Amino acid sequence: MKNVLVLQSGGPTAVINSSLVGVINAVKKNKDLGNVFGAVNGIEGVINKDIVDLNLLKKADLELLKVTPSAYLGTSRYQLKDEYLDHKFNIVGDYAHIYATIKEYDIGYILMIGGNDSMDTVTKLEAFFKGVNLPVNIIGVPKTIDNDMVITDHTPGYGSALKFIATEISEIKLDTSSYDKGRVTIVEVMGRDAGWLTAGSKLASLNGLGPDLIYMPETPFSLSKFLSDVKKVYKENKKALVVVSEGLKNSDGKYLISNYSYNVINDVFGHQQLGGTCTVLAQIVKESLNIPVRSMELNLSQRCAGHIVSKRDLDEAYKCGEFAVEQIVTESGKAVVIIRADKNSYEIEYGLVAVNDIANKVKQVPSEWILNGNDISMDFVNYALPLIEGEVERPFLNGLPEYIKR
Amino acid sequence: MKNVLVLQSGGPTAVINSSLVGVINAVKKNKDLGNVFGAVNGIEGVINKDIVDLNLLKKADLELLKVTPSAYLGTSRYQLKDEYLDHKFNIVGDYAHIYATIKEYDIGYILMIGGNDSMDTVTKLEAFFKGVNLPVNIIGVPKTIDNDMVITDHTPGYGSALKFIATEISEIKLDTSSYDKGRVTIVEVMGRDAGWLTAGSKLASLNGLGPDLIYMPETPFSLSKFLSDVKKVYKENKKALVVVSEGLKNSDGKYLISNYSYNVINDVFGHQQLGGTCTVLAQIVKESLNIPVRSMELNLSQRCAGHIVSKRDLDEAYKCGEFAVEQIVTESGKAVVIIRADKNSYEIEYGLVAVNDIANKVKQVPSEWILNGNDISMDFVNYALPLIEGEVERPFLNGLPEYIKR
Repeated sequence: MKNVLVLQSGGPTAVINSSLVGVINAVKKNKDLGNVFGAVNGIEGVINKDIVDLNLLKKADLELLKVTPSAYLGTSRYQLKDEYLDHKFNIVGDYAHIYATIKEYDIGYILMIGGNDSMDTVTKLEAFFKGVNLPVNIIGVPKTIDNDMVITDHTPGYGSALKFIATEISEIKLDTSSYDKGRVTIVEVMGRDAGWLTAGSKLASLNGLGPDLIYMPETPFSLSKFLSDVKKVYKENKKALVVVSEGLKNSDGKYLISNYSYNVINDVFGHQQLGGTCTVLAQIVKESLNIPVRSMELNLSQRCAGHIVSKRDLDEAYKCGEFAVEQIVTESGKAVVIIRADKNSYEIEYGLVAVNDIANKVKQVPSEWILNGNDISMDFVNYALPLIEGEVERPFLNGLPEYIKR
Repeated sequence: MKNVLVLQSGGPTAVINSSLVGVINAVKKNKDLGNVFGAVNGIEGVINKDIVDLNLLKKADLELLKVTPSAYLGTSRYQLKDEYLDHKFNIVGDYAHIYATIKEYDIGYILMIGGNDSMDTVTKLEAFFKGVNLPVNIIGVPKTIDNDMVITDHTPGYGSALKFIATEISEIKLDTSSYDKGRVTIVEVMGRDAGWLTAGSKLASLNGLGPDLIYMPETPFSLSKFLSDVKKVYKENKKALVVVSEGLKNSDGKYLISNYSYNVINDVFGHQQLGGTCTVLAQIVKESLNIPVRSMELNLSQRCAGHIVSKRDLDEAYKCGEFAVEQIVTESGKAVVIIRADKNSYEIEYGLVAVNDIANKVKQVPSEWILNGNDISMDFVNYALPLIEGEVERPFLNGLPEYIKR
């Protein structure tokens, strides 16, 4: 009876550990599977033989782990090479180390909890195992706040990021509305290639606290239209709450911020630093429209705000891990996807697709959901609302959310 | 029977509306007091006769208002002049308008929920009322996330800001620890003149997720010591989580960032913009130590994160409003303070002091609580921990915290 190895990979999320606990619990229940081990820092832990025994986690640890954000096992962005054999058909490089770890820990099954890039690693490992006749099944468990994975209806991690973003936008709207003094506030949301997170700010409008303008990376950015939009809203309301994606691009496909750079002027340094999209736009609004402006980035908290996660997201992340384990005895080279079977009642099913069909691909927000280049449609809201629903009861310690560390 | 007027003033907090509800409910219960009105945007609403009838709020509205962040009535930073009479002893300027509003609404009592600057307005109004024999009693209700008010043990709003900051620091620590790749993360916390909020990041260390280094505005900033501190921590851990106050000052008492400025370089503009403290320090670390570095500001969320408030703070804010109303029939020109009667069991009492003793003064963090210029003592932690304790059960709507808008 072979053992199981689980990896976490790519950017952390608030619920990636829920998938990990789903994996651990499902392995424990499955009579065809042996022990469950974890690789520290994803594929790097497999290469460096940095492996931990996850059976040591007690039930209370697992419950706390389920509601702890960020990657408990540590994560990695390391990319494997394609070639695993030299011209003499010897296993080479990282693959030789991977082979040794798998042999030593008697691994027969690997679960990779990760996003688009990590699915590329799954593809490479699958090719390697098949190529050298190593009997290891591998399945990818989806995870990314970016929601830019193809085929799956959405990705675990996205709903919790949206819940945090829309909550913050509501609260910032309340804050900025409380002053009589006019001001434009520009909030920058993560997402370099797709605007799924930025669009999520629109959810705050369901409670009457949405942004006035939303700019997505899917729409080529026009500075003149942006300034005219801001001017119009400001003229009407004396304020404007503007949400922009960090990945705003010009019509030539280059990032907006690539046109600008900052110079720290002082005695010592003179090098350039790329500023944030919101900072650049704030400066332009101030200079062009002579309006007081404030910019802010929601930054890292978007992917690690364990204190306000979506219950549905947390549960689905768990189920994705569990489902992958249920399939792994007979399946390999696949990734778990979520299928929305019924849009109205939000019924979902879990399925498997070839990991090749997912790896390295990016799903953008459909253009019909982006209105007038500065707003998001109710179709998106109807799609996204179920993903942020439900609150998680969680333990607090010393007045703070209680988390578990490795 | 005279009516009551309540104002909100200065920077909003997550619990300033809890004080407002405390006032409203206490007025309703008090047989010596008439109706309760609210001034829109603080003293500006009194001047402009922009007054709302708070009796119209139903019980359910008040319950929601209690857990809604930001200033429901709108806020103001407007400063009154000292002179209320001309040389012919006529009431002049804003004071004439204030007089008219008070007469029209038959106001006999004013509650000002505000911070240090707003207490200055209380002082001026008290002088005006006494000077023209207008029978109006006025009491200040303390409010500021900055906790920099003298005499009072702490200010309502501070505990909730701390709870948010320490929670974010815990989560950022989890996030940044999940990568094997080395990096310095610099987080900027609000507080231009006092480091109370910055010090609060230390609370995360109770749960093993505290920052590695903390820099306070109370300690003159030494760039060479900072770089040597960061280098040392980075050498040991390959990472460093650094928390800095926005108000870091050089030994000459000037803000650190006044030495630096940013130039947005592009075709159109060439003006300078003052960057954030964390951005400047990140750039310096990158250039001096050649270490990957990320900077972020917690920004507005520190004062409006209604989704994670301290129950104790929320309750104390309410009680401060209630207590002020209980005193106002017989007292004027005073401000409510919180007295910590017993440090070990955290027993508190509410009291009144002359508002003059509080207005325009700033309380800094005691130097004995700042260790080695880069850490915070357990004495501070013992002081601050009770302030963040307790969680608030709150309604959610559409997957988001439900808030009330005016």
